[in-house]
Amino acid sequence: MTLTSLQRALAQFAAEREWEQFHCAKNLVMALAGESGELYEIFRWLTPQQSAQVMQDDERAVQVREEMADVLAYLLRLADVLDVDLEAALAAKIEKNHRQYPVHLARGKADKYTQLGG
Amino acid sequence: MTLTSLQRALAQFAAEREWEQFHCAKNLVMALAGESGELYEIFRWLTPQQSAQVMQDDERAVQVREEMADVLAYLLRLADVLDVDLEAALAAKIEKNHRQYPVHLARGKADKYTQLGG
Amino acid sequence: MTLTSLQRALAQFAAEREWEQFHCAKNLVMALAGESGELYEIFRWLTPQQSAQVMQDDERAVQVREEMADVLAYLLRLADVLDVDLEAALAAKIEKNHRQYPVHLARGKADKYTQLGG
Amino acid sequence: MTLTSLQRALAQFAAEREWEQFHCAKNLVMALAGESGELYEIFRWLTPQQSAQVMQDDERAVQVREEMADVLAYLLRLADVLDVDLEAALAAKIEKNHRQYPVHLARGKADKYTQLGG
Repeated sequence: MTLTSLQRALAQFAAEREWEQFHCAKNLVMALAGESGELYEIFRWLTPQQSAQVMQDDERAVQVREEMADVLAYLLRLADVLDVDLEAALAAKIEKNHRQYPVHLARGKADKYTQLGG
Repeated sequence: MTLTSLQRALAQFAAEREWEQFHCAKNLVMALAGESGELYEIFRWLTPQQSAQVMQDDERAVQVREEMADVLAYLLRLADVLDVDLEAALAAKIEKNHRQYPVHLARGKADKYTQLGG
Repeated sequence: MTLTSLQRALAQFAAEREWEQFHCAKNLVMALAGESGELYEIFRWLTPQQSAQVMQDDERAVQVREEMADVLAYLLRLADVLDVDLEAALAAKIEKNHRQYPVHLARGKADKYTQLGG
Repeated sequence: MTLTSLQRALAQFAAEREWEQFHCAKNLVMALAGESGELYEIFRWLTPQQSAQVMQDDERAVQVREEMADVLAYLLRLADVLDVDLEAALAAKIEKNHRQYPVHLARGKADKYTQLGG
């Protein structure tokens, strides 16, 4: 399924359950915050090396996929109620990042663009 | 652009800047946490009604789109390094939600499925 | 118990369980992120009015107190490993806020100090 | 200053600026989410080893102290509006943790109590 069809499926899912009353932008942002917290809990005690191997444990792999799906779900619900084209928004952000993080300045550095000399 | 091509563009962007050394799963999850915090800051003092109108302010609309794009960007980077098919993961989660939240039990209720009678 | 004695009790609790190996600053920050996510989940679908009444439901009141305690616990663990005097840090921040948010400019406004005229 | 006097100072600070209208529990939880996001941003790209040395950089040390203070500030504002005794809540949670994480089962393990045998 494409992102657009997933967004529509989620909107229909909410409408069928009369959940639109709960799904104002503020609440959806807060739900996103809650779901992403579940993602952090999986990774909090892992070393960076262990975090790279997390999908080799079947049970954890299921959890990771589900929590990532939940984050995307609320992001798409938010996009729906605010009428944001999420793919276009990201494409525009990537464009902007190309300007803010030119390769010759940003190579190998974890700095914010505001800290990169130029 | 599709989600897959956005994911590839982000992977290439990171590779060109030799950022893969920073992009282990643990760090990407933490970056997702940081970016989503910027989304919460936009909405924290708004009433639910104001949150529904947030895109009518041009400056805020730009911020909302950018922060949503940043959350999606780190979610896609995470999907990339963990080899998760994000659209398939969400499609599977929607299936599961259909079983956990049947319309006749979940209608009009904000409860978790564990609290829904049945 | 005072904040200092709570901080010491938490440090001892971790030491007795040989948990210091997990409690580097990065991990503790991530644990704080996870626990605060559980706090957001309690409030996400509540209206502002309902959120003000949340302690009238006994079960929820217990949850709220426990999640707030968990957030404070990880904040104190972080203060411990980074040798931060949390009360002094907050006292200093309140001083700074007095300068950044003078009453005559900030009254009734939810703006950041950078947006307040002067 | 003690936690109680800091809580009172923050309540007075808000009252003087007529900010109580913004400080319902839901909004304060969301503000906590936003502020803690700024803490994550400091740590996201650091290795665990670097995170342990973060206070040796003067500029970062200031940031860490300020963001930790902000998290505590919103936690205390939340405690104020919900009439939660935060120190008592944490003392009670530590008691509970003693029961849920007995030393002989929890030693050296990062598991949740639900996963500890017994």
